[in-house]
Amino acid sequence: MPKANHRLTPYLHLESRFKRVHVLRSITHLLRWDQEVLMPTGSAAIRADQLALLDMECSSILHSRRVALLLDKAEAGENALTDWQRANLREMRRLWHRANAIPKRLLNSLHSSTTRAEVRWRRAHEENNFSLLAPLQERVLQVVREKARRLGETLKCSPYDALLDEHDPGRQTREIDALFQALEKGLPPIIERTVQDQAEKPFIPFSGTISIARQRDLGKKLMRCMGFPFDKGRLDESLHPFTEGTSEDLRITSKFDERNFLTGLMGVLHETGHAMYDFGLPPDWFFQPVGRDRGMALHEGMALFLEMIVGRSREFMRFAAPWMQRIFGVSGPAWDAENLYRQATRVSKTLIRMDADEVTYSLHILIRYDLEKEIFDGTLRLKDLPEAWNEKYRQRLGRAPATAREGCLQDSHWPTAYFGYFPSYALGAITASQVYNGLIRERPDAFDAVAMGDFSGLFDWLNQRIYSLGSRFTNHELMEQSTGENLNPDLFLSYLRNKYLPS
Amino acid sequence: MPKANHRLTPYLHLESRFKRVHVLRSITHLLRWDQEVLMPTGSAAIRADQLALLDMECSSILHSRRVALLLDKAEAGENALTDWQRANLREMRRLWHRANAIPKRLLNSLHSSTTRAEVRWRRAHEENNFSLLAPLQERVLQVVREKARRLGETLKCSPYDALLDEHDPGRQTREIDALFQALEKGLPPIIERTVQDQAEKPFIPFSGTISIARQRDLGKKLMRCMGFPFDKGRLDESLHPFTEGTSEDLRITSKFDERNFLTGLMGVLHETGHAMYDFGLPPDWFFQPVGRDRGMALHEGMALFLEMIVGRSREFMRFAAPWMQRIFGVSGPAWDAENLYRQATRVSKTLIRMDADEVTYSLHILIRYDLEKEIFDGTLRLKDLPEAWNEKYRQRLGRAPATAREGCLQDSHWPTAYFGYFPSYALGAITASQVYNGLIRERPDAFDAVAMGDFSGLFDWLNQRIYSLGSRFTNHELMEQSTGENLNPDLFLSYLRNKYLPS
Repeated sequence: MPKANHRLTPYLHLESRFKRVHVLRSITHLLRWDQEVLMPTGSAAIRADQLALLDMECSSILHSRRVALLLDKAEAGENALTDWQRANLREMRRLWHRANAIPKRLLNSLHSSTTRAEVRWRRAHEENNFSLLAPLQERVLQVVREKARRLGETLKCSPYDALLDEHDPGRQTREIDALFQALEKGLPPIIERTVQDQAEKPFIPFSGTISIARQRDLGKKLMRCMGFPFDKGRLDESLHPFTEGTSEDLRITSKFDERNFLTGLMGVLHETGHAMYDFGLPPDWFFQPVGRDRGMALHEGMALFLEMIVGRSREFMRFAAPWMQRIFGVSGPAWDAENLYRQATRVSKTLIRMDADEVTYSLHILIRYDLEKEIFDGTLRLKDLPEAWNEKYRQRLGRAPATAREGCLQDSHWPTAYFGYFPSYALGAITASQVYNGLIRERPDAFDAVAMGDFSGLFDWLNQRIYSLGSRFTNHELMEQSTGENLNPDLFLSYLRNKYLPS
Repeated sequence: MPKANHRLTPYLHLESRFKRVHVLRSITHLLRWDQEVLMPTGSAAIRADQLALLDMECSSILHSRRVALLLDKAEAGENALTDWQRANLREMRRLWHRANAIPKRLLNSLHSSTTRAEVRWRRAHEENNFSLLAPLQERVLQVVREKARRLGETLKCSPYDALLDEHDPGRQTREIDALFQALEKGLPPIIERTVQDQAEKPFIPFSGTISIARQRDLGKKLMRCMGFPFDKGRLDESLHPFTEGTSEDLRITSKFDERNFLTGLMGVLHETGHAMYDFGLPPDWFFQPVGRDRGMALHEGMALFLEMIVGRSREFMRFAAPWMQRIFGVSGPAWDAENLYRQATRVSKTLIRMDADEVTYSLHILIRYDLEKEIFDGTLRLKDLPEAWNEKYRQRLGRAPATAREGCLQDSHWPTAYFGYFPSYALGAITASQVYNGLIRERPDAFDAVAMGDFSGLFDWLNQRIYSLGSRFTNHELMEQSTGENLNPDLFLSYLRNKYLPS
């Protein structure tokens, strides 16, 4: 080892090891992107080997005795560190806890059970038959329970809270229960009244098709206006929209439909919301845990903010309508900003989460959250899931799916072991509305500027108050600092009332 | 370590370690492909970090004490191994020698000096000024000399032979000198007479443009006919054509020109030639050194065989002309097979290697080989290179470049430390003609079948005689087994005479 290294503190030694973890992860991101966007279909086996090897290299760093010793030493001397370094050390320990709580055998079981269950889920979805999936889902559930139990012991919380913590650090069942109860009460009347109101105000539907090339051109044009740096990122196409990468090479995708350009456009905005967060993360901490995003609930909040609150606003449509007319070569009343706004804010009681509008979306999440807790603790048996699912939809939305495909088979989260993830979506929606309030309080003209194609005020504020803070603060601290209070469901409900039920 | 592992032999332990090297390398291939084809321009820094980390992981395996011990033990017990295993062990040792002969410090110097020289080379090329490059080229040369000296000590051969060995295992200066002397004598009269002959037989040039989308469609169509497995590979576009990947995920590119579709098509054929070799490598040895190709001279031979010998044949043009007419939507005498053949076999004394035809190409290589040996041993000083280059062109081709850009600045090999690589191209050309002879002797109707779109006989033979043997044999053994003798320049010269100067 070169001489200079001996003079590095334990903390700085850790930084160099976590830098390696980050670079390995950035390679994983690229391989995953490639897999979804352009990998040849027959290359799945070597891709799995590549991903497994990168994972193994990461774990071998996080499981090494040397890193454990360095963490202890660095923590003993943390008074000598700056605030950011201390926060970084806290995040290193967090990653270390999560990695070391789960033995390799369990990680392998998790991998093999979810790989099998995901394949089976596709078939079950295709054949519209939940019982095909049930036994493999049961196996996944057993492994998830063991993982959660071990994580809970390490993190000193309940097993389910340990799962939540993975996606939204520090948020617990008790808090989510209270938030979601408020939504459960507040959302249905908004939905009912909006649906009635909108029945009297039809919009003019578009006719014909828009080529995918033109839809991509529009997407890129709007992304450019929003400041998406194309020298460090790309827009491509895939089966489902997603964002993958790091702020040095960040790639988003959308799914375009020639008959319905709004889907593709909203996908672009949603993923651009994710991307802008990542691009704004603190560059000085690029390679370090503290330089990463503050979990999926906040990430989803940033995406929903851009898609739902910005993208489905009158101001945005005033800005975007002329671009659509120009790039698509269309005209007429269907392409007028007000009509576009009406279409983008249409509320309907769809049974499919991915097609849901801004108002009903969170109801879909509340249903999943309730069911997943019951499945996890064994109160609800898997064989009874389809009926329980339908019953919940009947209660909450007033209609139930006729098939499992439109019901409990529509999402891949549970077969792939993403228990504890669903709440992120509704927490993201609450976060987005609260961020909107914080923004408007401090930059009252930010949305007027959007109408004129100027997104700088909006993104400056997000950068300063959220993006550039990375994981420096806890989630709760971050929300209080940027919006004045912790998550408050009333802000979300009154945002929806103001937008959908103006008096 | 799990119990079962203790029962593995040293040889099998090595296999598992070299499998890791292979998987790491396969990731490197993908990152390089992405870098050339679609990486955002600003992502070069993180890409360099990713590639450096993968390199470091590979070296740490090859430099580990454990692997050194395992190699010794496995060699001591090699009588118990099968032929393929013994060959694999030999290739492992070869990789180990090469890795361990070069200290990390030297590898870093090599990396940093070539990175700088390559950037400077681009500028020097643009500004047409060799003196800009010279000092950085001098630095690269010093590092290459030290690398060659160390490799030579390990491999017990001269430093320059050690460089040659990297690209064409086992081939030495003495042999190449003799081969190239024969070409030096034999090529000029063929060139002179062909140029005279062809002056009397003009071809009909194409007019207009062919869209790149259609050229890609043609490329894919022809690749499909040749058996390129698109479930494990892709065709894309880049600045220069290349092939990157492993047989489980292999990606080729070409460069298409709307005004000259032949360039793009020949690029497709050349890279398909590389790809088919990789696809045909022994699948049982996919992860192991013995399962890899037998060096760049043979690889180039496989590419030149498909591009020059197959692609620029009357039979191929009879097969391809109707596809061109159909996919490009063209017709008329310019698109007749005989006219296409005449154009594809046009010989001209261009000064640019990359534009050279089948007959003059090797002359360009001979010039570089002579100069590179003199540069390497110090007989020729870099400041005198431009004039020496021009003088060689005057002697060999009868005309000299007017600028350095058309002269010694045209290739990036020397700034990027690829000394010892150039010979591979001409050796590849000799190999290709010899493979052609071997094929025709055993499958006399292979080319008649090509005219009818049936490439199976041709590829069956290549598969059996070359591809599927991987690195099981030495280069010399392989050529003798597949073609009956070691490289013979007379076969190449008489192939050219038969094709270009039919009596």
